[in-house]
Amino acid sequence: MREFEMLERLRARIQARGDRVLTGSGDDAAVVRCDGLTVTSVDAFVESVHFRLATTSMRDLGHRCLAAAVSDLAAMGAEPGEAYFAVGLPPQFGEREVLEMTDGAEALAEELGMTICGGDLTACPELFIVVTAVGHAEDEDELVRRAGAGPGHRVGVTGALGGSAAGHLLLERKDGGLDPELGDELLQRHLRPTPLVATGRALAGAGVTAMLDVSDGVASDAERIAECSEVLVEIDLTRLPLDEGVEAVAVSAGLDPLELAAAGGEDYELLFTAPDTVAEQVERAAGSAGSPVTWIGTVREGAGVRLLAEGGASRRLRGWDHFSRPNLRTSP
Amino acid sequence: MREFEMLERLRARIQARGDRVLTGSGDDAAVVRCDGLTVTSVDAFVESVHFRLATTSMRDLGHRCLAAAVSDLAAMGAEPGEAYFAVGLPPQFGEREVLEMTDGAEALAEELGMTICGGDLTACPELFIVVTAVGHAEDEDELVRRAGAGPGHRVGVTGALGGSAAGHLLLERKDGGLDPELGDELLQRHLRPTPLVATGRALAGAGVTAMLDVSDGVASDAERIAECSEVLVEIDLTRLPLDEGVEAVAVSAGLDPLELAAAGGEDYELLFTAPDTVAEQVERAAGSAGSPVTWIGTVREGAGVRLLAEGGASRRLRGWDHFSRPNLRTSP
Repeated sequence: MREFEMLERLRARIQARGDRVLTGSGDDAAVVRCDGLTVTSVDAFVESVHFRLATTSMRDLGHRCLAAAVSDLAAMGAEPGEAYFAVGLPPQFGEREVLEMTDGAEALAEELGMTICGGDLTACPELFIVVTAVGHAEDEDELVRRAGAGPGHRVGVTGALGGSAAGHLLLERKDGGLDPELGDELLQRHLRPTPLVATGRALAGAGVTAMLDVSDGVASDAERIAECSEVLVEIDLTRLPLDEGVEAVAVSAGLDPLELAAAGGEDYELLFTAPDTVAEQVERAAGSAGSPVTWIGTVREGAGVRLLAEGGASRRLRGWDHFSRPNLRTSP
Repeated sequence: MREFEMLERLRARIQARGDRVLTGSGDDAAVVRCDGLTVTSVDAFVESVHFRLATTSMRDLGHRCLAAAVSDLAAMGAEPGEAYFAVGLPPQFGEREVLEMTDGAEALAEELGMTICGGDLTACPELFIVVTAVGHAEDEDELVRRAGAGPGHRVGVTGALGGSAAGHLLLERKDGGLDPELGDELLQRHLRPTPLVATGRALAGAGVTAMLDVSDGVASDAERIAECSEVLVEIDLTRLPLDEGVEAVAVSAGLDPLELAAAGGEDYELLFTAPDTVAEQVERAAGSAGSPVTWIGTVREGAGVRLLAEGGASRRLRGWDHFSRPNLRTSP
């Protein structure tokens, strides 16, 4: 009964937080108290597609998978509550690996005040992790969808971009020449991203009209806002805020830094739109939550995304979609 | 942008039901109205571990994975609400396969009044499906855990057992000699199980004290009740209700029919305990919901599970755990 013993030890490592969880892991299903709305996101991660174990520890993996799923809740302005993990384990993986992953996820859950409420553990030739993250909100006014962007609204982004993609390049290519401390920051940006929960709630409260998290890269993520809001989203690539070190890593890899910033993805910053009237309020709210805001574009009537390069000329980026992107990036 | 187009077509095949779902698939996260408690179960299914595509259509797979996850909600007495699918797709799988699987899941969702609210789609060398099923209840009194069994309570099971395991044997061995209609019923029992939602709610309302669904086989599932309730669960194997045809299939495979009934699993019947005082009420409630009840044992002080064979002698079954069982059963 290897599975049940492993689950016992796993349960001993996780802890309930808050007073919502009435039954956590160990019954047929988890029972959670809700008063209003639940906000649910499911994210799947597969070895050799989303990460490589050669460059990612199980502990980092636990953190990163939970962070990515919670980032979707942050982008709605929801308060993170519970997480469920479904894990497919290759034969060479044992209890040690599962517990390390759990420790990584549990440490982030503690930071976020979340409870890991259970999941499923199964054999699988390929390592995979599926995280279901559930957040809460009292009513719809607290939440921001992708569909509220209107012509004339500004396009804003929090923090800086390209750091995760640069960290990934460093991880895979072991490029030298970069200040080790800076390099380490980029690696952390890739391996242990921070979901911007407080920033997301602050932005929602400040009146942003559409929002999502930067998971595929602003170019592709802006497309989602454009589709859902039925508008044209114009982004001035020259205004994209770059993480420190992104330029050096990109140049050394023979890539355009803007490519990393706009299409690298997995920065888990927040991309949003807001009318001029609330711009100042938005900057203040995000700033108080620890996130600077950069205005990088404008919403217009039309459809799709227009990327502007130097001098306002239109520019195309390589099309990286969810299927090809990770592979492209593993061997760029 | 293959993924986004596929998701568009997928979304066109699924439908919202009831008035809980405020935002379904297509935003950062689904938004669902809740009034009281959510009940959440996550189940993972992997090709070559839980099913083989050689013997399972994508449509059946969609049905079966959703059924298994919802069966956990039924075992709590919850009302099924939403489902989320995370799917890992091997390179040779395309839109056709995903839509077939969706159709199978959506048809069952319609029967159950559930809404498929989204999920995630990713590349993976091995096909996997993770279903997160969410149910609802107004308060805790409506729900039944695994922990309420007390000494003197009866042990009951709904319907009949062994049908899924027998169907699986038929599927893998293509044994002849069985009445084709009967064989087909056993196959359906394995490929398209029915989660006993109405029965679960009826049993919860009638006062059962502990309940779970028969996923690993009553012998192993009774162990879970014994652990959670800190009791000894005694099961009289000679009283197990067998699906029609199980005996013939077992004999032709050189197996003991009781082994299939007690350890085959995936019957998705409900195993429960109840004091004598509510026994009649329990039988009536389950009967009204379409499920006959058979009393198969007694809860006693102690720990673990005792299986009784002919004449009350103790009996041991082969230990099949979650990891080894499907493989054992694929080549018994």
